Amino acid sequence: MHPLLIENFVKNALLEDLGHGRDVTTDLLIAGSKQARAVLRARAPGILAGLVPALTAFSLTDSDCGFTVNANDGDMIGPDEEIAIIEGPARAILSAERTALNIITHLAGIATLTAAYVHEVRGTEARIAATRKTLPGLRLFQKYAVEIGGGAPHRHGLDDAILIKDNHIALGGGIKKVLQAAQEQAGHMLRLAIEVDNLKQLEEVLKIGGADVILLDNMDIKTLKRAVSMAKGAVVLEASGGVDLDNVRAIAQTGVDVISVGALTHSAQALDIGLDVA
Amino acid sequence: MHPLLIENFVKNALLEDLGHGRDVTTDLLIAGSKQARAVLRARAPGILAGLVPALTAFSLTDSDCGFTVNANDGDMIGPDEEIAIIEGPARAILSAERTALNIITHLAGIATLTAAYVHEVRGTEARIAATRKTLPGLRLFQKYAVEIGGGAPHRHGLDDAILIKDNHIALGGGIKKVLQAAQEQAGHMLRLAIEVDNLKQLEEVLKIGGADVILLDNMDIKTLKRAVSMAKGAVVLEASGGVDLDNVRAIAQTGVDVISVGALTHSAQALDIGLDVA
Amino acid sequence: MHPLLIENFVKNALLEDLGHGRDVTTDLLIAGSKQARAVLRARAPGILAGLVPALTAFSLTDSDCGFTVNANDGDMIGPDEEIAIIEGPARAILSAERTALNIITHLAGIATLTAAYVHEVRGTEARIAATRKTLPGLRLFQKYAVEIGGGAPHRHGLDDAILIKDNHIALGGGIKKVLQAAQEQAGHMLRLAIEVDNLKQLEEVLKIGGADVILLDNMDIKTLKRAVSMAKGAVVLEASGGVDLDNVRAIAQTGVDVISVGALTHSAQALDIGLDVA
Amino acid sequence: MHPLLIENFVKNALLEDLGHGRDVTTDLLIAGSKQARAVLRARAPGILAGLVPALTAFSLTDSDCGFTVNANDGDMIGPDEEIAIIEGPARAILSAERTALNIITHLAGIATLTAAYVHEVRGTEARIAATRKTLPGLRLFQKYAVEIGGGAPHRHGLDDAILIKDNHIALGGGIKKVLQAAQEQAGHMLRLAIEVDNLKQLEEVLKIGGADVILLDNMDIKTLKRAVSMAKGAVVLEASGGVDLDNVRAIAQTGVDVISVGALTHSAQALDIGLDVA
Amino acid sequence: MHPLLIENFVKNALLEDLGHGRDVTTDLLIAGSKQARAVLRARAPGILAGLVPALTAFSLTDSDCGFTVNANDGDMIGPDEEIAIIEGPARAILSAERTALNIITHLAGIATLTAAYVHEVRGTEARIAATRKTLPGLRLFQKYAVEIGGGAPHRHGLDDAILIKDNHIALGGGIKKVLQAAQEQAGHMLRLAIEVDNLKQLEEVLKIGGADVILLDNMDIKTLKRAVSMAKGAVVLEASGGVDLDNVRAIAQTGVDVISVGALTHSAQALDIGLDVA
Amino acid sequence: MHPLLIENFVKNALLEDLGHGRDVTTDLLIAGSKQARAVLRARAPGILAGLVPALTAFSLTDSDCGFTVNANDGDMIGPDEEIAIIEGPARAILSAERTALNIITHLAGIATLTAAYVHEVRGTEARIAATRKTLPGLRLFQKYAVEIGGGAPHRHGLDDAILIKDNHIALGGGIKKVLQAAQEQAGHMLRLAIEVDNLKQLEEVLKIGGADVILLDNMDIKTLKRAVSMAKGAVVLEASGGVDLDNVRAIAQTGVDVISVGALTHSAQALDIGLDVA
Repeated sequence: MHPLLIENFVKNALLEDLGHGRDVTTDLLIAGSKQARAVLRARAPGILAGLVPALTAFSLTDSDCGFTVNANDGDMIGPDEEIAIIEGPARAILSAERTALNIITHLAGIATLTAAYVHEVRGTEARIAATRKTLPGLRLFQKYAVEIGGGAPHRHGLDDAILIKDNHIALGGGIKKVLQAAQEQAGHMLRLAIEVDNLKQLEEVLKIGGADVILLDNMDIKTLKRAVSMAKGAVVLEASGGVDLDNVRAIAQTGVDVISVGALTHSAQALDIGLDVA
Repeated sequence: MHPLLIENFVKNALLEDLGHGRDVTTDLLIAGSKQARAVLRARAPGILAGLVPALTAFSLTDSDCGFTVNANDGDMIGPDEEIAIIEGPARAILSAERTALNIITHLAGIATLTAAYVHEVRGTEARIAATRKTLPGLRLFQKYAVEIGGGAPHRHGLDDAILIKDNHIALGGGIKKVLQAAQEQAGHMLRLAIEVDNLKQLEEVLKIGGADVILLDNMDIKTLKRAVSMAKGAVVLEASGGVDLDNVRAIAQTGVDVISVGALTHSAQALDIGLDVA
Repeated sequence: MHPLLIENFVKNALLEDLGHGRDVTTDLLIAGSKQARAVLRARAPGILAGLVPALTAFSLTDSDCGFTVNANDGDMIGPDEEIAIIEGPARAILSAERTALNIITHLAGIATLTAAYVHEVRGTEARIAATRKTLPGLRLFQKYAVEIGGGAPHRHGLDDAILIKDNHIALGGGIKKVLQAAQEQAGHMLRLAIEVDNLKQLEEVLKIGGADVILLDNMDIKTLKRAVSMAKGAVVLEASGGVDLDNVRAIAQTGVDVISVGALTHSAQALDIGLDVA
Repeated sequence: MHPLLIENFVKNALLEDLGHGRDVTTDLLIAGSKQARAVLRARAPGILAGLVPALTAFSLTDSDCGFTVNANDGDMIGPDEEIAIIEGPARAILSAERTALNIITHLAGIATLTAAYVHEVRGTEARIAATRKTLPGLRLFQKYAVEIGGGAPHRHGLDDAILIKDNHIALGGGIKKVLQAAQEQAGHMLRLAIEVDNLKQLEEVLKIGGADVILLDNMDIKTLKRAVSMAKGAVVLEASGGVDLDNVRAIAQTGVDVISVGALTHSAQALDIGLDVA
Repeated sequence: MHPLLIENFVKNALLEDLGHGRDVTTDLLIAGSKQARAVLRARAPGILAGLVPALTAFSLTDSDCGFTVNANDGDMIGPDEEIAIIEGPARAILSAERTALNIITHLAGIATLTAAYVHEVRGTEARIAATRKTLPGLRLFQKYAVEIGGGAPHRHGLDDAILIKDNHIALGGGIKKVLQAAQEQAGHMLRLAIEVDNLKQLEEVLKIGGADVILLDNMDIKTLKRAVSMAKGAVVLEASGGVDLDNVRAIAQTGVDVISVGALTHSAQALDIGLDVA
Repeated sequence: MHPLLIENFVKNALLEDLGHGRDVTTDLLIAGSKQARAVLRARAPGILAGLVPALTAFSLTDSDCGFTVNANDGDMIGPDEEIAIIEGPARAILSAERTALNIITHLAGIATLTAAYVHEVRGTEARIAATRKTLPGLRLFQKYAVEIGGGAPHRHGLDDAILIKDNHIALGGGIKKVLQAAQEQAGHMLRLAIEVDNLKQLEEVLKIGGADVILLDNMDIKTLKRAVSMAKGAVVLEASGGVDLDNVRAIAQTGVDVISVGALTHSAQALDIGLDVA
């Protein structure tokens, strides 16, 4: 992750918490010269993600903060495990604590949830992927956390791949017309994906050709199997819609290449990580 | 919500999705003159929140978008209910769709979860409140959604109330010293809250006086009851830590005034709301 | 003061002075290798405020600038007193000089004026406070300077306390209605203040209860005394309106707790501080 | 004034006052549908300045605000004179009030002080000018207010004219060297000004030639007269340093062309203007 | 092009020209009430590009500006052809003129140069494409102009496709290693391109497989022909390096699919377009 | 050049290339621990400009990058000459490469073109100057490159000099009216320039007086000579319009003081500079 992006992200988070500019509690009660030592500690098991931006919250608050790092993004962390130790001015540690925790608990929550999906599909050929169903302003960091959890990022935005959805087909004049237009006009550096709702559409897409990826939207297991037998090898097949931890393995076993899961980024629960100041 | 804040928030969300600046799919496939009509529709029951910023995503993409609004923030919405109709250029509707949905599904998810907590404590005196455990950059809108769901926003940041936590006490020289320092030096326009972990600390705080609010951190039901009997009426009592939908009613029945729930903002699931383009 | 806030503030001030980007005089006339030593010197007696952002103007212009600091914010400084010595590249010292002086002379002016008010009320219980009558973009730093001068910051904005003014009462349905609405709906972490113009209103407010602070707006000494005898102890009493250095002691002697003075931030004169380059 | 500059300035001022984003008082107490009418009224005599940005505070808060304007920037306004009427949603009027007043009272204060200086020098050839001694972030608007009061803006920054000061002379190798370097290398679109402290320096500058403007720094009346007799006509002469309303006329009567006054922008008092909501 | 991107781009350009904030010439000499009519007129033949952002410079300066548009982006325009007529306040027209012209002359210059390349390769299968050799801050608009001229945009940045260059191969462990790593780990929505310098590398890449696009870097015509015969059909072949208007047709005739030309964006000459005010 | 301006400029350029935030190629293929050494090398002869911002692209991407600098801005560089060596993490070197090159090749291209014009007019009194015909967002750096090439920057914007053009004359009431208005009202720190199209206008301007600079717009050599004989010495004479490398010497030999050339900034070709990674 580029340092400029981390810096901007953490600065904005700190300023959001500072509001009119002061940590009134800490400024009143803690002497400027007071030093402290704090342990960033897991309180539940999971996958660590976001350690660098979390620590950056402390160093941007006071450049005298120093760190001892015992785990890295992607590591499985157990309850009570010491992730990192922060030493420095007590004011900075107390003022930056909440911002640091808000970052790391969210990103580790996403990585942990992703890892659970990845674990479910172990041994199959399916890869778990994120979607564009991200929270405003957090996409880059959320997609990073998905990757840390073993998933794939998928499209980052409207600009980095062509993805023809049902509404494009409906408003654009049908599958044949949009697919051919996309093939002819798209730049050679953009992947072309198209979403289909049923096997008839799939057949039409395969016949026309030109798609790199076909999204099989909201199909049941039986239909997915049929789709795989029709298309496997010719294109990348992605299952999406209604995926959860209970059905993801069955979906993977149909032979699809990618399973995309919106919940990874729109509904992940925070992983409990705390800061113990000593 | 001030229009400048909504505008900035939605602009940033749109630009994040645009990346290098183009919806390559829509630009290629949909004629600029094509008009469309889309229905924003609930796919699960819940409390609506974030309708104005969601619609703003469309109007900022094309000022020719028009809206028919059938529900407002705070309304209970049922499955398949039409929330609003968007009419305008098809390109704008397709390009802004994901940004609009990312906003409204997250905020409605928070409002819905808050309302569930509020429902649990009905008939008691306890009010459900958010915390500062929010996602980076989303605090203002997340707290707004909590209010829409019937909750209270609590502190917005480090600057708008004094909240003395365990670390302030430990690093600041003990309860007596920090409480007196806070009382003497705090501005007259700031509330003073202090967190206690046990009844002995509570007793000390009550004896010293000066606190407007006492946070009872991670106490069990029995201890909370004792705390209420010791302090009720003298100060506002807030229970926090380990609250969930299963235990919130029992906590409320202890007689505390406020129950703060971090999960409202750090772990709410999105409410399923979709856009059907006709 | 958080380093991010100081940095943003000083960067903007430097860029404002740079305009299209060049100090044309210094760039033409002073060799890049030339070193200089400059003394930041008081030219009038007063209270120092803003030293850190002032010195930051030099270090942001050239990180090779070094400082010897002889006084700190809050110190009384006498005419010709050396506040700090800046040593480094001559170009940086000359280019940043005006920005540094504009910051420190304004903030020290505010601190000095505040200290004069604080001195006037010595021995009484009244505290001098700022208001929201600040200059656009300067509030955080102006309020900081008030605190350095011994005053209190008061509300920082529209968001960090409830302050019911005459217009809220008039448009909101009368004292009783607005006061009760505020009590019922305000978050538990917000102070509630209400402004009254006369003793009848004061009586009504006291009877309804619920206010933490009552502003006594534009009352004469006699009325203030009556107000204090009616309300003292029950709530914080703040006198405001028409306060100047001539009448502030008499106001303080009425027994009010706080005296707010808009002039501290909207009409303070700069304290004369200069930079002597050797 | 370019609308983009006004918009940016007023947006920043509004956001500064909103802090975490809500006018908690108004939002709680005033119904969204409530309309109001407010009169912007002078409470002291002076020169109006900043009306457009002040009204912009209301329109940026709610675009339904409408205005009836009875006076314009530059007009002399008397006590109790109605400057403008604002009609629109009560919430917007109450929320934007302080921001609007902070802008207009400061700018009108500067215009009024400038006009007092201009009045003092009436009948002489001297023009009153501002300096770069402005408050951080406010320079453009402060200089505008000086112009509204009848003064001249002087340099806007380090980039728009060459002004050789004592330190440039000292560090740059003496008057002759810096003046010749400036002449030779300066672009043909930049004025060249130089500051002198005594008549000997003035003589040297005149002899070398090339300066468009000579600043006579901190000279007494007698010395100024000598300077004028030495240089008048050949260059523009500007007196600066220690100017106040008591001595400005005497300075003007020496025959100098420009008198620059730092106090116009660093020490002007706010003009009392209020908003009466009906 | 999304309106938010156009608005931000034009605002920044206007503010850059305004510097400290005033068009001093126009403000002094032209009455605010003066209306004018101006014709945007081609002074040389070429392809129009950037009309909307150019006109936006006027409307952002004064929303009373109105437009009559006679040509659109992509149109061939001849000398003296009237592109558009702007009517509105004379001040706005004069102040925004240079910014508008700087935008449109640059973008039309790029479109015109692109069209010249496209014209040269007419009848072949080769498509002309831009590169990332763009001017800082202008990439989005420069790539847009290339598309208007009939070219393709290629990668927009480091994030929207994998492009393995010689340095990646050298530092990453050789063609086989990097190509396999890229295939295995790259997301399914990213195209994979690799640059080769000679036919031996090409052979290796073809043998390993997995690349969507192969860049043939700096090969002579004979080598390109060999490359095409080796790889045609299996992957997209892109010729790059040392392309100019003299050799582009010969390169196209080798049978490559894409020819990328850095000069389109780093060295295009402005198209002469002027504004005649009547 | 002020470090804040360089930093902002380079940050924006890097973020533009990063798009959604990742160099997907380098992140996948190059180990984080891999170090590299790269040589910035001229591939064509020219004048170096922009080395500091180019190197800043590397250091902002990874602060561990170190530099050995063999040439400085303004130096003539020959083909294959090593300008600088960058050593540091391979990822940073590869990711920042294109941004660094886009900056330096453009600025060196401008400096080189400027130097060619300056070389043509050697021995005459004419100075080559830039115009406001710059590319949006690049003006400051483009004008800097013109100066490095031996040219003069001319006006930086609408605010730093008065330049009366034909449209100001037409819309402002004629030469006499606008020239007198400008003289009377312009600040004493602004140069006053006026553009004339023919000798009759020149005569009128000279008769009225007050202009510091007269622009002779689009005059042929013979007319320019007449103009010089009419006005030389009294004012600075600037020739503009239709200047190219073929006619610039003849124009210079007419005796004009300044020749302004829009092509320096709107149509300079990039200088070929590359980065060789070893």
